[in-house]
Formats: sequence, C-alpha cells, structure tokens
Amino acid sequence: MPWEFRDKVCIAGIGETKYTRWGKQTKSEFALTCEAIINAASDAGLPVDEIDGFASYATERQMPAHLASALGVKRLRYESLHWGGGGGGAPGGAMNAMLAVATGVCNYAVAYRSLCQGQFHRFGQGAASPNAVVGMEQAFRAPWGLLSPPQDYALQARRYMHDYGVTSKQLGAVAVASYKHAQKNPRAVMYGRPITLEDHQASRMIADPFRLYDCCQENDGACAVIVTTAERARALKQRPVYIMGASQGASYRGAAWIHNWPEYPSAAFTEVAKDLYVRAGIGPKDIDVAQVYENFTAMVLLSLEDHGFCKRGEGGAFVEGGRIEMGGELPINTSGGNLAEAYIHGFELVIEGVRQMRGTSTCQQPDAETCLIAGGPGVSPCSDMILRR
Amino acid sequence: MPWEFRDKVCIAGIGETKYTRWGKQTKSEFALTCEAIINAASDAGLPVDEIDGFASYATERQMPAHLASALGVKRLRYESLHWGGGGGGAPGGAMNAMLAVATGVCNYAVAYRSLCQGQFHRFGQGAASPNAVVGMEQAFRAPWGLLSPPQDYALQARRYMHDYGVTSKQLGAVAVASYKHAQKNPRAVMYGRPITLEDHQASRMIADPFRLYDCCQENDGACAVIVTTAERARALKQRPVYIMGASQGASYRGAAWIHNWPEYPSAAFTEVAKDLYVRAGIGPKDIDVAQVYENFTAMVLLSLEDHGFCKRGEGGAFVEGGRIEMGGELPINTSGGNLAEAYIHGFELVIEGVRQMRGTSTCQQPDAETCLIAGGPGVSPCSDMILRR
Repeated sequence: MPWEFRDKVCIAGIGETKYTRWGKQTKSEFALTCEAIINAASDAGLPVDEIDGFASYATERQMPAHLASALGVKRLRYESLHWGGGGGGAPGGAMNAMLAVATGVCNYAVAYRSLCQGQFHRFGQGAASPNAVVGMEQAFRAPWGLLSPPQDYALQARRYMHDYGVTSKQLGAVAVASYKHAQKNPRAVMYGRPITLEDHQASRMIADPFRLYDCCQENDGACAVIVTTAERARALKQRPVYIMGASQGASYRGAAWIHNWPEYPSAAFTEVAKDLYVRAGIGPKDIDVAQVYENFTAMVLLSLEDHGFCKRGEGGAFVEGGRIEMGGELPINTSGGNLAEAYIHGFELVIEGVRQMRGTSTCQQPDAETCLIAGGPGVSPCSDMILRR
Repeated sequence: MPWEFRDKVCIAGIGETKYTRWGKQTKSEFALTCEAIINAASDAGLPVDEIDGFASYATERQMPAHLASALGVKRLRYESLHWGGGGGGAPGGAMNAMLAVATGVCNYAVAYRSLCQGQFHRFGQGAASPNAVVGMEQAFRAPWGLLSPPQDYALQARRYMHDYGVTSKQLGAVAVASYKHAQKNPRAVMYGRPITLEDHQASRMIADPFRLYDCCQENDGACAVIVTTAERARALKQRPVYIMGASQGASYRGAAWIHNWPEYPSAAFTEVAKDLYVRAGIGPKDIDVAQVYENFTAMVLLSLEDHGFCKRGEGGAFVEGGRIEMGGELPINTSGGNLAEAYIHGFELVIEGVRQMRGTSTCQQPDAETCLIAGGPGVSPCSDMILRR
C-alpha cells in the first residue's frame, strides 16, 4: 500500500545561482545560498520571509539560523541536516523538509545546498588534515594511499568491472550522454564543450579506471527548492510538482562506507529503492526520466541496477546505444548533471527533476510524468525521491 | 486545536553512560555513544539492531552511518541533525526523530547526544581557531573579547538584571536547587557536593554576573532515548511516555545569535513556546515539572518567563522561596541538570523528563502528569517538548 503522504507535498519553487568552475565565484558561499533561496521563493511566487523551514545535507556550511536572519524570515519553525558524507543526501534533505511540511511543523520549507569548493576545500584533493571523527574510516584507508574520492571509488568501480565485464567505453557512455545534454543547457559549465566517446577514451587517467571525463566537476554555486503542502502549492505561481515517495538510509552494514559492504560492489541502494517504490506505489518501469547522482560514471551503472532498471551486472549494456540519452528509453541527467552541468553536491539534479515535471527542461523528455532522483550512489546513507507532474 | 500527532509517539527507552568531569572518561566518544544507545535499547526491551533511525543535534560528532554499522543495525531508514549552535536542540533532536516515526519513515528512532569535551574542545574555553563559518557572528564579537560562552551570555544576563532588578542571589537560587536535587542522584557528578546560597555568593567570578556556580559543568558522556509510535511502545518493556507536543525554531531575527534580538534580553522562546502549547493543547498552568536548559542560571529565569510561568522580569522572584525545588510549585532540573548532574549538552534533561513521567526520578515530583523540556535558552534555533505519563 502506498505511503499515506504520497502526493501530499509538492516542490513549488526552484532557484539557483550561476554555476562556475571552483574558485570563480565573486560572492561568498553565504551570499550565494541566500541568492538561490531568494530565487526559489521568487520562482514560487512566495515572499521569501514566509519560508519557515530549512533543510540541507552532508557538509553544508550555511546554517539555517544565519540564513533565516539574513532573509528576514518571520518565524523559523524547522531546521535539519540530512546527515552523512558525500552526495547521499540531495533527495534526503528535500525528504526531511517534506516530513516537516507533512506533519504541519512548518508551512514552506526550503531545501538547499551550497558548495563553494574554491572558498574552502576542493573535494578532489586529499584532505590536508583529515578530520579524525567525521572521516573515521579514513584511518583505515589513508595508510594505503586512498586520500581522495576518485581513489576510493576507483576500487569499487574496478571490482564491479572485473566481476561483470563492464568496459571503460560503457562508463564513457554516461559521460557522453551528460555532455550531450549539457550542450542544450546554457546554465551548464560545460555548455559549448561537447565530447565524444573518443575524447573520453583519450582523456587522462585520474584514478584507474576513472579518466578525466568519468569524474564529476569541482564547482561553486548554490541551489534551493521550496517544499510545501499540495494545497499551498496550488495557490502559488508554478505548476506543482508532487513528491510521490522518498526514502533514505542504508542496508545492513551499508553505512560502513564503501569498502566492506556485504553487497559490494552495489551502490548500496537496493533496500532504499525498495522502500521508495513501495511508498510511491510504482516501479522502475513507471519511471520516465531519471536524475542519477554521478560522482563517477561507474556509480550510475550500479545505481541503475540497484533501482531495478536492469539486473546486477547489466548496467554497462544498459547505458549503451543511446538508451540514457535524450529521446532514449530512460534519459538521465538531462541538465548535464554533476559531470557537465555543475557539481553542487547533486542538488542541481533535484532542480532538473522539477524542470522535467514542469516540462521546462532544456532536454525535455516528451510527456514525462515521473522522475526518479537518486542520491549519491556509493555513499551512505543514501537517499531517493520520485516526483510526478 | 491540538496537533494531530499529539500522544501518537512515545519515548520508550532511555540510556546513558557514566557522566564524568571533562577528560575523565576512559572510552572514546564513539564507544560511549554506542554504550548509551545500547543501554537505551536494553531499557526499552528492544534489540539494538532494530533501531532504524538516528537523530541528534548541534555539534554532535558521532554520525549515524558509523553508529548504525557498529551497532549492527539491519536497515538504516532515517538520520538527521537538528541544526544549530549550542544546546538549542535537545528536544529538537528528539522532535525530528518523532517526525520520522510519525510519518512511518522509520519504526524505532534513537535520539542521542554525545559530548566528550576532554577529547576535543572544552566549551568554556575560547576557540583557539574559530571556524569563520559556523561561528560567523564571532567576527562581530571576538574583536571585543567575547570569546567564550560565559562572556557572551553575561551581557544578556547583565542587561536582564539591569532592566528588571534581578539579583545575583536570585540567580543563585537556580544553582542551589540544582545542587540540592543532585544530592539525591548518584549519577550526578556533583553528588555528595551540596552548596548553599552563601557558597554561590562566595564562588569566584567567571564573567560578571556569572560566578562559578552560575555556570554549567564541562562533562564527558553520552545519552540516548528510543522514540517510537505509541502502539509499538506499548508492546515494549517500559511504561510509555507520550510526546504531547514539540516545537523548534526562532522568532523574527531570533536566529541572529543573541546580541541583536528584537526581544532581547528574552531567551527567544516566546514564539516557540506558543507553538508548543497549541500543539500540546495545554498551557503553562498544566505543567507539573520542568527540565530547563541552563548553560547559565540567568537563562533559566528568562526561559521560565518566555514559557509563561511568570511575566517578563518576574523570573527572579519566581525562582525564590523553594518554588523550583523538590516539593515546590514547579520543580525544575530534578536530576541536578547541566549545573550539577552533568552537561551532556542538555540531553540528560530529556532523560530526566522521561524518568519523571515514569515515576522513577531520584527527585520524583508526586503525581506528576506532565513535564516540559525546554532547550537551550539564549540559543537559536531553540526547541521545546512536553511529555506526559
């Protein structure tokens, strides 16, 4: 039986800043976060001071208390961080906002994420002084030279490729699709810079099997969505986009970072996806378009398998032949995603999901009724959401 | 009309570690957190691997992903941090757990807080290298020498005392009550160390008007509570304690830390308390016993005013004459609280609230039916909860 909260909460507004390469923003991360939230409220037709809930995720630095004060929020009623490393929380942050709205704790929650790697720390670099607590498991990895995300996920990807005969060209198909979609999206950092599969194959090795184009970008920017009840959303400016279902978490020991999962090399989404589909009352066959978090290309294949679009080990074949490109059977990352639009820790994928359901994407899937947003594969806890128009 | 979730969710188990002076624990903060959670599950009669949600608050360092793995949790379904500085979130963390349970996102959430100041940083000390983002407002305070919490709250307390003629002896009444209650509580760090009002008056000045006994302790330890639906709670071992209402947040600009609130020197709880009472469907007159966060004594007076137990400026008179002591009209902090039991960032007050509703406090208020738990006054966002037996 579907969730009693299915379709009861909507995303009513979306907002973002200009996205840039790391270090190229002229405003502070705080100012950019405010800008994205103001844009989301404006898009919804909601006075920004009516926002009364704030939800974010992962290592977000901009606190609700400061944002609410700067934005003139009349009354702050809810705030939470979907806790966890990496990009596991883009749908999860929005999901927590949804719970607050669904229970009447607040009326208009903003889910947001800001990330100015240039002003703080580039994700692609090994930490100069690893935090011994937040990165507890680093104590087990760092001595072996696993200092940065590409190195970590390379092990998982290599094991996956070994077990199932997945090829580098199949990983490249994900990158090619993203860059192709980005060419239609003027917001994308990689707009005007298309690549071919040959470019992918010729690009330099970062951490075997990941070549340059297998890796997400390092960007600066912020984005936000307004979450409210379906009833309130219908009174606002935009066509409401309904949240059919959402799910977060991890399987047994799936929370123990990536290298000792019982399900390895799965993306650890199988249990989370199961809950998601039950709550939404639909299955993978009902998904028209998907935004799938890609810190690295291989994770998309694993995530597609975990979400039931194909069987374990078949992700490589699934992404070939244009199936995940515009006009294909299941277009993914239609804005260019983390690889080619911008890496705002995956939150820009939530915004693109909303655009698809509004019918306003620059790579609009015709008649798309449902959109899956899958959080960071290979990151625990991870999270999922299904939107419908 | 009361909240539809009133009395639908319960606290079914409580757990804690030994509490010590800072630096006196022999186990890591992580191990202590696991111990508290295991104790809470055991108290509830719940296998610890059935816990599927984790909620904490403020600067909690121990992440759900790691805890879930270490505890053998079968399936992690929810995780959140009630975001904000200081002790604003003890009820807020438990409230977020409640929302997850109420919406069916998880079945058994643990709300927890660990704090080993000796292993990391003593709150009472100025930060050696202030984090420019988390402590944004520090940029405005540090140049004037406001480096540690006693200095910050001293300004608020002094203004309050000036405006309303509140005296140091009235602040002392809060400390005397807490120490008195702690003498009956063998878990209290100050057990066996009673103080008189004269001791308070003679204690050394920390930051005028705060003397030593006006300040909370600096402790190490961890505590946890199991939050589940009323139906599930009734199938467990303990008499369920019902959550009547909960509220969090801040008033207009109340989130802008403490020195520029429109309501200054209020504890910034007036709007949060209003929502709380509406949701619970009761008022201050219906509260039998209260646990009121005390980083510093003066904040208790302000919080009692904000929660409607007396009028603005009357807090000093209210706490005199034994009214807040065992057997008084409104006993508060019946375990000894932050001042005399232990400062686990206020979460030990949640546990004491549950004990009062079970009838098992070492300072049991006879026939207590309701207990208010007020988060960190003077901290934004703050949070509140009302429990009933």
